[in-house]
Amino acid sequence: MSGDIIEPKILKGFRDFLPEDEGTRKKIQRRLEDTFESFGFVPIDTPVLEYAEVLLGKGGGETDKQVYRFLDNGKRDVSMRFDLTVPFARYVAAHLSELYLPFKRYHIAKVWRGENTQRGRYREFMQCDFDIVGVDSASADFEILDIMRTSMRQIGVEDFTIHLSHRGLLNRFLRVLGLENRSVEVLRAVDKIPKMGKDEILVLLSDLAGREKAKDILAFTEPEKTNGETLTKIENLSGGPSPESERLRIVFSCAEETGMIGDLLLNPGITRGLDYYTGIVFETFLTALPGLGSVCSGGRYNNLASLYTPREIPGVGSSIGLDRLLAGLEELDKLRSAQPQAHVIIMNLDENLTGYYHNLASELRKGGLGCEVYHEKKKLGQQFNYAEKKHIPLAVICGEEERSAGVVTLKNLVDRQSYEGIKPGELVGRVRELLPA
Amino acid sequence: MSGDIIEPKILKGFRDFLPEDEGTRKKIQRRLEDTFESFGFVPIDTPVLEYAEVLLGKGGGETDKQVYRFLDNGKRDVSMRFDLTVPFARYVAAHLSELYLPFKRYHIAKVWRGENTQRGRYREFMQCDFDIVGVDSASADFEILDIMRTSMRQIGVEDFTIHLSHRGLLNRFLRVLGLENRSVEVLRAVDKIPKMGKDEILVLLSDLAGREKAKDILAFTEPEKTNGETLTKIENLSGGPSPESERLRIVFSCAEETGMIGDLLLNPGITRGLDYYTGIVFETFLTALPGLGSVCSGGRYNNLASLYTPREIPGVGSSIGLDRLLAGLEELDKLRSAQPQAHVIIMNLDENLTGYYHNLASELRKGGLGCEVYHEKKKLGQQFNYAEKKHIPLAVICGEEERSAGVVTLKNLVDRQSYEGIKPGELVGRVRELLPA
Repeated sequence: MSGDIIEPKILKGFRDFLPEDEGTRKKIQRRLEDTFESFGFVPIDTPVLEYAEVLLGKGGGETDKQVYRFLDNGKRDVSMRFDLTVPFARYVAAHLSELYLPFKRYHIAKVWRGENTQRGRYREFMQCDFDIVGVDSASADFEILDIMRTSMRQIGVEDFTIHLSHRGLLNRFLRVLGLENRSVEVLRAVDKIPKMGKDEILVLLSDLAGREKAKDILAFTEPEKTNGETLTKIENLSGGPSPESERLRIVFSCAEETGMIGDLLLNPGITRGLDYYTGIVFETFLTALPGLGSVCSGGRYNNLASLYTPREIPGVGSSIGLDRLLAGLEELDKLRSAQPQAHVIIMNLDENLTGYYHNLASELRKGGLGCEVYHEKKKLGQQFNYAEKKHIPLAVICGEEERSAGVVTLKNLVDRQSYEGIKPGELVGRVRELLPA
Repeated sequence: MSGDIIEPKILKGFRDFLPEDEGTRKKIQRRLEDTFESFGFVPIDTPVLEYAEVLLGKGGGETDKQVYRFLDNGKRDVSMRFDLTVPFARYVAAHLSELYLPFKRYHIAKVWRGENTQRGRYREFMQCDFDIVGVDSASADFEILDIMRTSMRQIGVEDFTIHLSHRGLLNRFLRVLGLENRSVEVLRAVDKIPKMGKDEILVLLSDLAGREKAKDILAFTEPEKTNGETLTKIENLSGGPSPESERLRIVFSCAEETGMIGDLLLNPGITRGLDYYTGIVFETFLTALPGLGSVCSGGRYNNLASLYTPREIPGVGSSIGLDRLLAGLEELDKLRSAQPQAHVIIMNLDENLTGYYHNLASELRKGGLGCEVYHEKKKLGQQFNYAEKKHIPLAVICGEEERSAGVVTLKNLVDRQSYEGIKPGELVGRVRELLPA
């Protein structure tokens, strides 16, 4: 009302999605959904806003700086979700009686973190989680890896490696070294090797465990020439065969049998930083972009919902970093713009034919084709220009004369050829013939 | 860590979506997306959080109670979006140079309003908007109505009526009555007739305009026996033929020509409460549930982004109230649960066959079938129970003996018939034969 113009700016770390980018994201999201569903996974959704106490735990007095937390108009202490794991734990506890275990769900949704935006991080981003809860078996562990592999293939990524390990074996090894009470710190330190380099981590580990044991730990984390050799090494170092080494052995034999072994690397240096993992852990790297970091990570946890229910619920799951993956695909030029485009546009030569144009369009759509109508009688050049910008390959041209004669002209906007005298009843068929393969 | 259990409760007015409901929502969302795209509409996305000033306008000192507004960790005054229209206006102004006009976009996303939850309203809900901006023509107006009609059909709604009018004609009529300066109040009062009843609105209008003119206004808003008669009436009352009545005439003739006239009612009582509409306005009612209110509404506005740019951008658009529509469909029993389900489950008879099972599953998936693997060797009864809960129609049963013989048994879980001796290579074909139509 004031006549003052407000600058249409958005918050730092947030993004508008132009149609090309949103189209791509939607296309990839559909492929992921279809993949998850082909494995029997079902979708759920949870609120974006929840009680801060529920998301952050009791005594969360010192707010995590990364969390968007505030008092709502009813003075409730609320937070926006910062991941999909905590809400899932809360969801499983709340709906145990309505769910059947094992429960396999996926959830693709936005989360918010007030991160430092300087390293190209976003404060609003999409997560894509899939988990199996209620069962602790090699079969479930393997299925999550299989879904990761299949998902990557389905979205056009061929060259990647899933780095896999088992936390329990490293912990057994630490017990052998008498370091069981430094497990959390050691696992966190090992997790940082790729980021900080071995030398720096050796210093860090030496402080925790002494220089000799620090060297032993680094040696443990090195993959050998083959997955088999690595498994033998860490099995021996961790005190011989154990349920944990047996679990890894079965997972690798499944991978062998299903032909995905080439995508798997047993890498004992993978620990994941987070405390709640208890079994296998994994990260996924694009071969051409190792510096991008993991695009799909997760692991087994044996007590998902302990904050909300006394019942122990084991699970295994993984999360695709959709934004990071899209950025990677774009860098590799593997992302063709997926802006939806109509197959045909009906040009506007005579506004008295508006109803006729919409009728033609409707028939084309009934024939399974995407069709636009140009909504104003502008110069044909301008209309062609619009069609070109939207990558529409074919145009229907029809003025009053053609309408009276019961025909239309079809124009191929790529090679500029025209096809005259087409009857409306033949239009769907002719369009299909002329569409680029 | 404290051992205290936190109650897994959620905020009033917010919802968890169980797989059946989320599956249904996703299915309907895909159908809508496909419909919009068949008309050449493209998807966009905008941030959930924006500067409060940008969403609420300058001098928004007295916060709208319905808006979730707070200071973020950087002390920025931010709000969660409360609709998709304001962010769209901001988006168009921000990206004018990157967009081609006319621009046709859709946006399906959540919005938040701290509404009174007592009337079954949600504080977090899904909106689904589609708009054409950059053109002011009958063709564009008609296309929005056509999309509304087509969308309803695509999601299985057959019996509905789109009530349509043109604000300009009511305004012309008010000018005839000498009430042009009471237009905003009169339009808002007329908008409330369905909710408050004619008697009450007559009192309200009498206060504004005197009893005689109030009666004239009510008479104006009454639809006649046919759309044609109604159009003639309001054209005459508003001072004779005008660009506005001509616009309605073309829209109705397009509807006639494309066979959608039966879904349209010219209802001069439709005004929409909001100030920004300037042309046609419309609401959609399900025939069987008139009390549900409009499930799809909108209209033409001639200055979408005036808050953010001096450039005048006309547009026309509509919004589907997805949650209300879903509630209506559920009440009409028109909503079949759309929880995704696999076609086959591989039963777990022997954990040594884990890799073999996953291999069979992988082959079935490559054959285009959804397939689950049961992840533990539990009693078969328990496994069948799981399959039944997930509505999986077929099971593959294979123990070590079958594996050695190179065959599996396929069991129809509906009629309990078993088919033995099937070779893995024949499995996809046999499953397809046995699937329920």
